[in-house]
Amino acid sequence: MIFASDNWAGAHPRIAAALTAASDGFASAYGSSEQDQRVETMFNEVFEREVAVFFVGTGTAANSLAMAAYAKPGGVVFAHADAHMIADECGAPEFLADIRLRAVDGPSGRMEANALRAAIKRFPPGFVHGGQPGAVSITQSSEIGTIYTLEEIEEIGAIAKSHGLPLHMDGARFANALVSLDVTPAEMTWKRGVDLVSFGATKNGCWCAEALVFMNPADAEGFPFLRKRAAKLFSKSRFMAAQFEAYLTDGLWLENARHANEMAQQLAKVLEASPHTRLAWHPQANEIFPIMEASLAESLRAEGAVFYPWAAPEDIEDQIGEGETLCRFVTSFATTQAQIYAFADLLETAGGSKKAAQ
Amino acid sequence: MIFASDNWAGAHPRIAAALTAASDGFASAYGSSEQDQRVETMFNEVFEREVAVFFVGTGTAANSLAMAAYAKPGGVVFAHADAHMIADECGAPEFLADIRLRAVDGPSGRMEANALRAAIKRFPPGFVHGGQPGAVSITQSSEIGTIYTLEEIEEIGAIAKSHGLPLHMDGARFANALVSLDVTPAEMTWKRGVDLVSFGATKNGCWCAEALVFMNPADAEGFPFLRKRAAKLFSKSRFMAAQFEAYLTDGLWLENARHANEMAQQLAKVLEASPHTRLAWHPQANEIFPIMEASLAESLRAEGAVFYPWAAPEDIEDQIGEGETLCRFVTSFATTQAQIYAFADLLETAGGSKKAAQ
Amino acid sequence: MIFASDNWAGAHPRIAAALTAASDGFASAYGSSEQDQRVETMFNEVFEREVAVFFVGTGTAANSLAMAAYAKPGGVVFAHADAHMIADECGAPEFLADIRLRAVDGPSGRMEANALRAAIKRFPPGFVHGGQPGAVSITQSSEIGTIYTLEEIEEIGAIAKSHGLPLHMDGARFANALVSLDVTPAEMTWKRGVDLVSFGATKNGCWCAEALVFMNPADAEGFPFLRKRAAKLFSKSRFMAAQFEAYLTDGLWLENARHANEMAQQLAKVLEASPHTRLAWHPQANEIFPIMEASLAESLRAEGAVFYPWAAPEDIEDQIGEGETLCRFVTSFATTQAQIYAFADLLETAGGSKKAAQ
Amino acid sequence: MIFASDNWAGAHPRIAAALTAASDGFASAYGSSEQDQRVETMFNEVFEREVAVFFVGTGTAANSLAMAAYAKPGGVVFAHADAHMIADECGAPEFLADIRLRAVDGPSGRMEANALRAAIKRFPPGFVHGGQPGAVSITQSSEIGTIYTLEEIEEIGAIAKSHGLPLHMDGARFANALVSLDVTPAEMTWKRGVDLVSFGATKNGCWCAEALVFMNPADAEGFPFLRKRAAKLFSKSRFMAAQFEAYLTDGLWLENARHANEMAQQLAKVLEASPHTRLAWHPQANEIFPIMEASLAESLRAEGAVFYPWAAPEDIEDQIGEGETLCRFVTSFATTQAQIYAFADLLETAGGSKKAAQ
Repeated sequence: MIFASDNWAGAHPRIAAALTAASDGFASAYGSSEQDQRVETMFNEVFEREVAVFFVGTGTAANSLAMAAYAKPGGVVFAHADAHMIADECGAPEFLADIRLRAVDGPSGRMEANALRAAIKRFPPGFVHGGQPGAVSITQSSEIGTIYTLEEIEEIGAIAKSHGLPLHMDGARFANALVSLDVTPAEMTWKRGVDLVSFGATKNGCWCAEALVFMNPADAEGFPFLRKRAAKLFSKSRFMAAQFEAYLTDGLWLENARHANEMAQQLAKVLEASPHTRLAWHPQANEIFPIMEASLAESLRAEGAVFYPWAAPEDIEDQIGEGETLCRFVTSFATTQAQIYAFADLLETAGGSKKAAQ
Repeated sequence: MIFASDNWAGAHPRIAAALTAASDGFASAYGSSEQDQRVETMFNEVFEREVAVFFVGTGTAANSLAMAAYAKPGGVVFAHADAHMIADECGAPEFLADIRLRAVDGPSGRMEANALRAAIKRFPPGFVHGGQPGAVSITQSSEIGTIYTLEEIEEIGAIAKSHGLPLHMDGARFANALVSLDVTPAEMTWKRGVDLVSFGATKNGCWCAEALVFMNPADAEGFPFLRKRAAKLFSKSRFMAAQFEAYLTDGLWLENARHANEMAQQLAKVLEASPHTRLAWHPQANEIFPIMEASLAESLRAEGAVFYPWAAPEDIEDQIGEGETLCRFVTSFATTQAQIYAFADLLETAGGSKKAAQ
Repeated sequence: MIFASDNWAGAHPRIAAALTAASDGFASAYGSSEQDQRVETMFNEVFEREVAVFFVGTGTAANSLAMAAYAKPGGVVFAHADAHMIADECGAPEFLADIRLRAVDGPSGRMEANALRAAIKRFPPGFVHGGQPGAVSITQSSEIGTIYTLEEIEEIGAIAKSHGLPLHMDGARFANALVSLDVTPAEMTWKRGVDLVSFGATKNGCWCAEALVFMNPADAEGFPFLRKRAAKLFSKSRFMAAQFEAYLTDGLWLENARHANEMAQQLAKVLEASPHTRLAWHPQANEIFPIMEASLAESLRAEGAVFYPWAAPEDIEDQIGEGETLCRFVTSFATTQAQIYAFADLLETAGGSKKAAQ
Repeated sequence: MIFASDNWAGAHPRIAAALTAASDGFASAYGSSEQDQRVETMFNEVFEREVAVFFVGTGTAANSLAMAAYAKPGGVVFAHADAHMIADECGAPEFLADIRLRAVDGPSGRMEANALRAAIKRFPPGFVHGGQPGAVSITQSSEIGTIYTLEEIEEIGAIAKSHGLPLHMDGARFANALVSLDVTPAEMTWKRGVDLVSFGATKNGCWCAEALVFMNPADAEGFPFLRKRAAKLFSKSRFMAAQFEAYLTDGLWLENARHANEMAQQLAKVLEASPHTRLAWHPQANEIFPIMEASLAESLRAEGAVFYPWAAPEDIEDQIGEGETLCRFVTSFATTQAQIYAFADLLETAGGSKKAAQ
């Protein structure tokens, strides 16, 4: 009953098989192999346009180099207060891109258009003391498992454009959002004003596979130097390519995401059905956030359920009662129905025994 | 007949198998899994002392973060002029560690003790204009396939210590040096004054496995933040651990290196025996540097042999005649005797036909 | 009627005279002259202990290098949301010290102890994703002309110490705070837990004179390299020393600050007495923040009064009515009573004509 | 008898007077005052074209920000091995501009065109491992008091242009070169391909006055943010403007430089005439490099002459005999003929007594 994070899963068998298949033979290094190039072409198909693709090893690397690609001196990047770049990257974007991050508020883990407008306004053109706007970044699906609608993305994209700013999408869970909205990658990105995507595959079945995808290849000029200078260019790059090839072949990536999302919905039902837990908000991707008594969370953990407590977003704080705790459950391609059932049983038992004990 | 680089090889079957085996099941992320911890213990055995180990994705990352671990403001790192950090890392060490690199001369790709003494002297204590010495780095085996003797390492280590500087070893081809000298890791490192090793496994049979090994764990305090801030902490870290576990089990790493070195010796014999080629210097690890006529190199390539031309080190330059070229051949765990034979045949034919054509 | 900023003033005649006196003759460069050393000793007397002093050219430089002096990888510095470092330094502290800044709330431009405790708690020891606490910084007098009491400083100092963090004081207007509290520099700094002061003199009568003062000289080890590496070491350093010498001689610095503060009190009375303006909060140093109708501000400016509009702090926002604006007036050593009188007259006239026009 | 450096002098009386004159009254800050703008216009006249001018506090700051203005990821700047940026700036250019510096050889402290061509060739387009060429920088007059001819500058400029690289001139002693060549600033800069000048005035009579001058104002877009982010924007900027205004008025700057150079010629004659000293090379600006016995240098110093020993450039090394030392003497606007005479007397006496003592 591991719901700690989707990165606690290993690799999908087809990913492992692809790596094994690729391990034989010789191929040119540093991304120049045939397999690398073949996979780059697959991304053109995925996005229905010619894109520029760069593999990197971590989501933090993808986000940080994305920021570096558009960095300006004194540049400020606008992102939601809960954004991974702000909360969970140990300052990597600031360090690697020499940017600053400015938190923009919004309920449900999503940046609000008006808050973004106000935030950008604090940096009027030419005012050197404050610095200058540099980029806008949104996370899809968001850090709390919610999803921007296409209209919301479009509005944010329009604001960004009106200030001459690129729009970046942190897609650590890109596939989960895609299948949830049931749209194409093109519809969720460049058709709504997204310029650059951190395309995550690690959490969705790969070992280690992240890609930075420039919607306009011209924007990537000089980027190979940025990646190498940040020590993020793999020599045996085909170990990345092989993962992505399997990932994108026969819809494995969408299948994995659909499965994770479906498991999340089932788990949500279990949590909603229980008299001992309630959902802080409705899950739209593969993360579920129940509120429960801290003592129950302890009992569940003692019985083998693994999940993290979570700091409550400001707009939710007053929903959490004395003695209660907000928790995060994450499902993945590797989550099984058996795990859900086992957890449902456990919840019933633990909730019951808890009740009995009171 | 691929002799382009040892990173043109894929992964050893036992590495691939280990990854497949690890791909199943759940494990805690970011290096905290049991497998990660088990592998860290293996490094203690390898080095015969308690060490601190950190996995990273590229040799450039290992070297750069090594520099960051001991960085001082205005700090200068002394390395051979041909060092990978100086010649082939696109400024990553300077960027990620805010250090400068100072080239120290020496024949055969190895830093000379007296040249090191003189170089350090240029930065007297407290002289802010020049900056301050920060570290000394040597590559073992060197970028041109030669090897520091234990005595040489010891002398360099003593110089470093006398100035209070750490000694770093870039071990992208650590195993090749080890089996060539036929010594233990301890003998080649901390017993001779080495404080920190970039322990490379990628070139010797892994997909992507580099480790930074601190001989004194106390030196690694704060390092986890350095690694994360540089966006180099893998979430599914066990994919690194699994590779290293297979690599260090049953001596696979030494076996692979012995094979690569043996192939290099055989290839060297072929090149020495030919009337058309001669060796610029004797190979001690898995890189061989023959001198041949440029037209012969062309013919060989046209017939399918893959190898790079190489910029001649200064102390060798006058040995290369008009119309001749220095080339680099690299062998690896994946090089087969059949490839050597095929190349020998090709060399004889191409050399002969070249001769005949003249 | 220039109330735009204290940096719109020039230099005090005694500062100018000191520079002229020093301009003759030869002296060793880069801070090693007798005059430099003499002035360093004066700082020991000012702070009643042996301190380490470094001259720099701007307040932003002092603050940024202060951060660099204690920087840790992934380090986070806690400062008030209105802090100069956050709002007005174009990312210099982040760039020069590789730190991040975390806004801590508090009314009246001052960090609240509980808010600081909560903010630090977000970065538990060893949690690499978030980063680690690095330092705490307060501004005295604050960016809005208010002043921390000695008890408040002591409490913040104690919190910082309990987490092993240094406490920095941005003293761009250090002297104004000092005379307002009527305490000694020692009482306002190290006796309350302050480790490092950006000691500003530019706004208080010098041309260009800022000093970084380490309360514990041992903390400044390596700092000379930090300053030089940031390109902030003046060659003819005695032009700094000469300014500081005159500044600290015969109490000129305190006299200037007392005058500026007194002018602020007089201006405050004028603004309070007028039926057309009211103070957003009571001035404690040399900055006054009146609220007035935007049309009145326009009239005043049209008649030659120079002052800036100011973004209202959150805790004040609802006090500003429709059509009203918050303004900042700053006095300095160069502000004269005649200017105050002239402004009082203007305010009466403009307010009256405004009224009449309505 | 101070010949230690031109930065051991103070400020010219007209500079001091200008500062005193400017110290009265109010003026807008951060470079927006009328005086600032007036001085910017003077630079247009100096360079006979519209230029963009930015004041900074040190030569190292000017050079470092110059590099930042044209920085590319992984970028390499080519400069002479003795260049101030390489030898005497504690890594500031690398730190502030994220560039690397590549030493280019050449006799007499000047980069040789062919050596530059060869150096650039080491960084072929698109080769990420090495990095990419970023800029070329020359120092005029050079660090050893020699001067590039206009033809040499033109050739270097043409090489830079052919690779799409900007040419920077470190003009810490710009005026000394100008009067030595007896040409106009335009002739020595943009007419020969120079794009950017670090225009030094500190060593030539100011307290603290350096300017970065872009020959093409369009290149300076975004530069105000670069300067502010590096914490190098002065608030009371008119203290810089006032110095430059006096400096450029009535040819003070050229007069000062002519005087310094003339003093250097006289001192050179004294040193040439002595049987105890000889010149390592002929001075072309205000630095003189005699070779003498170390014991004589000691005697001279004991009697009050101040000058530094100097590390011999490689092409001169074998001219320095056993027991001899290379020394640097620098003259300035403040050097008097009386000092030269006094030194001449001292040299005769010390040389004689030394002889007698042998």
